Amino acid sequence: MSRDCDIETPHQGRLFSVEVRTYRDEQGREITREIVRHPGAVLIVPVLNEQKLILIRNYRIAPDQTLWEFPAGKLEPGEDPRNAALRELEEETGYSAARIEPLGTFYTSPGFADELMHVFVAEELSEVGQRLEPGEEIEVHLIGREDALEMATDGRMQDGKSIAALFMWNHARRIAAR
Amino acid sequence: MSRDCDIETPHQGRLFSVEVRTYRDEQGREITREIVRHPGAVLIVPVLNEQKLILIRNYRIAPDQTLWEFPAGKLEPGEDPRNAALRELEEETGYSAARIEPLGTFYTSPGFADELMHVFVAEELSEVGQRLEPGEEIEVHLIGREDALEMATDGRMQDGKSIAALFMWNHARRIAAR
Repeated sequence: MSRDCDIETPHQGRLFSVEVRTYRDEQGREITREIVRHPGAVLIVPVLNEQKLILIRNYRIAPDQTLWEFPAGKLEPGEDPRNAALRELEEETGYSAARIEPLGTFYTSPGFADELMHVFVAEELSEVGQRLEPGEEIEVHLIGREDALEMATDGRMQDGKSIAALFMWNHARRIAAR
Repeated sequence: MSRDCDIETPHQGRLFSVEVRTYRDEQGREITREIVRHPGAVLIVPVLNEQKLILIRNYRIAPDQTLWEFPAGKLEPGEDPRNAALRELEEETGYSAARIEPLGTFYTSPGFADELMHVFVAEELSEVGQRLEPGEEIEVHLIGREDALEMATDGRMQDGKSIAALFMWNHARRIAAR
């Protein structure tokens, strides 16, 4: 949907920019909307075998907390999401995947941001060694499938994208097994 | 974790503000982080009965798409999340809940934002009539549980918080039934 509107850009950052749009709705009322423009990101569900997943403990400055998450990272300009997924998986967990398949996409915060998350499932994993970027603090853990599902329900997992991706993977797995 | 850092605020908006923090990591390397400060939000899983949920079709300007979502909205300053959930449920769907229980919380985009989502399950619903805010375009739909789970897996549902909340509710329901 395109509409006539004024656009201001109060922040043009390295990770995202902010747009403020002002327009009139069908009743002529003035509406202001603030939008975070984000390049999009990838998340990887790394499956060691049917019963074991790779999760990370990741310090996040925004909520000032260390969270349980799947490996993930933003897309570089023009980068293919599948290549980004393989890169982030290796950098953050130290595992390389011989097999990686798309599981789906979703918007993480469509109320204020256009970040689209591309979710992949990585299998046939082998250890190659972690390569962290400056400022990253990441611990790698192998977690059983049932334990991970419990963590996503009882409040231990507090990362929305990882909760969504874990259950999407589990539901697709159950449907495939029918 | 608190660290010495410089903080700039290039955007101070109505919905969120942006902070840019610069600090040094343990190796003395300079790190810059951009953070969206958000007041937090609520999401409601409205359950008409065990088999039927209320979902909305909601136009979102950030991704410029109409998305399948659960009713949701941001917290007003100092607002109790439970009251916000009852308010948003009524405004967006036109249903009032006699029973509302917390299901959990998660961060929607902890890589760049501190938005915490408070998820509730609403039951014992009665129709009172929708009250939309200026700029809101919302359609109300009753969707079967199995259909909703399929929509969250096959790509029709593209809202990460709704996917996470739907599966959290479904998993908690299955555990309670064991």
